[in-house]
Amino acid sequence: MDNSTGIVTTKYVDFDVELRLESGRLLGPLTLAYETYGKLNQDASNVILVAHAWTGNAHAAGLHTEEDRKPGWWDNMIGPGKVLDTDRYYILCSNTIGSCKGSTGPTSINPRTQRPYRLSFPVLMVRDMVRAQKLLLDHLGIKSLLSIVGGSMGAMQAIEWAIHFPEMVRSIVPIAGTGRTSPMAISLNALARQAVFNDPLWKKGNYQPEHPPADGLALARAVGHISFLSDVSMQLKFERRFSVRDGMFDFFGKFEIERYLDYNGKNFVDQFDTNSFLYLAKALDLYDVTWNFDSLSEALERINCPSLWFAFSSDWLYTPQQTEELVTELQRLNKTADYHLIDSDYGHDSFLVEPEKYIPLLKTFLDQLD
Amino acid sequence: MDNSTGIVTTKYVDFDVELRLESGRLLGPLTLAYETYGKLNQDASNVILVAHAWTGNAHAAGLHTEEDRKPGWWDNMIGPGKVLDTDRYYILCSNTIGSCKGSTGPTSINPRTQRPYRLSFPVLMVRDMVRAQKLLLDHLGIKSLLSIVGGSMGAMQAIEWAIHFPEMVRSIVPIAGTGRTSPMAISLNALARQAVFNDPLWKKGNYQPEHPPADGLALARAVGHISFLSDVSMQLKFERRFSVRDGMFDFFGKFEIERYLDYNGKNFVDQFDTNSFLYLAKALDLYDVTWNFDSLSEALERINCPSLWFAFSSDWLYTPQQTEELVTELQRLNKTADYHLIDSDYGHDSFLVEPEKYIPLLKTFLDQLD
Repeated sequence: MDNSTGIVTTKYVDFDVELRLESGRLLGPLTLAYETYGKLNQDASNVILVAHAWTGNAHAAGLHTEEDRKPGWWDNMIGPGKVLDTDRYYILCSNTIGSCKGSTGPTSINPRTQRPYRLSFPVLMVRDMVRAQKLLLDHLGIKSLLSIVGGSMGAMQAIEWAIHFPEMVRSIVPIAGTGRTSPMAISLNALARQAVFNDPLWKKGNYQPEHPPADGLALARAVGHISFLSDVSMQLKFERRFSVRDGMFDFFGKFEIERYLDYNGKNFVDQFDTNSFLYLAKALDLYDVTWNFDSLSEALERINCPSLWFAFSSDWLYTPQQTEELVTELQRLNKTADYHLIDSDYGHDSFLVEPEKYIPLLKTFLDQLD
Repeated sequence: MDNSTGIVTTKYVDFDVELRLESGRLLGPLTLAYETYGKLNQDASNVILVAHAWTGNAHAAGLHTEEDRKPGWWDNMIGPGKVLDTDRYYILCSNTIGSCKGSTGPTSINPRTQRPYRLSFPVLMVRDMVRAQKLLLDHLGIKSLLSIVGGSMGAMQAIEWAIHFPEMVRSIVPIAGTGRTSPMAISLNALARQAVFNDPLWKKGNYQPEHPPADGLALARAVGHISFLSDVSMQLKFERRFSVRDGMFDFFGKFEIERYLDYNGKNFVDQFDTNSFLYLAKALDLYDVTWNFDSLSEALERINCPSLWFAFSSDWLYTPQQTEELVTELQRLNKTADYHLIDSDYGHDSFLVEPEKYIPLLKTFLDQLD
């Protein structure tokens, strides 16, 4: 496995802190799950933070065991000789708080009650996730980030890092991001929420982990799935093909696209906790780079590093216009902000499906930072 | 009320027939609900059929009683001096079969069992709706239609009319239509279906009418509602405003767009039957102008009247490209097909929200037919 990071292990670190959140509530103690790939250099100047999306996790590259069938979620980006080159960079990926993949979230034990938080978990903003990551970097003795690279919710984290810890951040690469989620994006998450709320098994978040609101979560995931695709990508993959197993005039007969959404929705139920899904959806909805600032320019004025932005032509969830709004304002403020609109048919998912379309641009950008 | 059609009444006619459907099943006897506005001229040459959309009905214009707060659904189009001028034209609008607004549908009594059809109702195609309308025109002694005008599912009906009864049709005006629903449109309807299927009150269609699957239907309607809007129209109307009644950090706190979708979804439950909603959604999904033809050109070759097509720039449900595919093929076949892409921010709903943008073009077209 020449270009693989090989066998990797998720690490966990506990912080005996009470993190003050944007909501005013305190959260702690905290556990953060993270993985690293490559070697930290002597002056700790080669760190790239990879920030994951909504349902992502710390396992960005490599395999956990030799038997793993799938590598980490961004394995095509991270490894020896790849664009996030583990021969040069020390790559760090940590699971965000609010998630269910090792960091503190709604499934964690609330120390005050000794029972899982569930809905007693505080509503988070992306800014809170970044503050928690800062604890991890302090713990690891890392004082500077060569770059922060992330797509979707990862892009939001990159932006927040550059605004709130400008002294630590030497560049950011927000991919398929937004400065604030649109009412369209919020309304899709509202459907997902309602799908869960309608499921009698949800029990206002007090479901038993072994009996999650599977129908509701599967439907919620299907909503998300659609928003990650595009009209064209669905056409390319499914056309109007009807399932060969169904009669076209059966009331319950399905098109292939329906079977696909069903299948993926149901699979997701075993992979993700429902409450975590909802808390992270809420964080996405609340995301607004101008939160607690008077204006967009006041927020972006704080960024003092070069930034590289990618948006995708068919992304109707976080549209190119949303990225362009940020880039235009940064350029107006005389900041170094490079922007590339990537032509791709794969909707919001383009950043995962066609990385080859932006990898060369990313490589050039990172090379110039060294 | 100078420019109103005034007080109108829905009429009903029963047909003792067995209509053979595209599925091969028979449906009958049939009841059709319809309204008419204006006067039939002596040679019955001034008939314009108005075809309604998914959840529409026969009540296209005027008031049912003096106390009605709202006129028919296309009252701004139909009346004395309006574009569908009741001083000149005899306007006819009939409720499609499969609906719950007076024509035979899943809520009707199945004559074989003396109980409501519910899921024993056959799956319909738009073509079947048109065949049923043909019975009504025969009954009324109408042998020729000056035009068929309709938006969305109404556009599909107009197209089917021109293909299957070309000898009767002197023009069609499909608005915000499509020649076949896309996988994106199907996938959104799939969400709506699943929202209902997930509701325990649905009981595989055997809910009591007074206890419909309200949560499921409300969510299903919200899915539809989103697909009728656009990113820009939501931004214009709601921005990212948070409900003043909720705390932003309340887990159940809502953005204004969420409240709006909720409110409209819940309202809809009292207005429409769940099974009818699902049957009509199915008909939309199955809609394909090429069904039972070898090709698009074979289907469109049958059209021998002029056609006028409107699509809307922000319509992401039935995109302009879908209309353009049909118009391009018609023009290739040397048919008279006029096409106008209307610039509007209101998504699929544009045809209802901004009719003033196409009314003058429609008027010119209709004037030329006389």
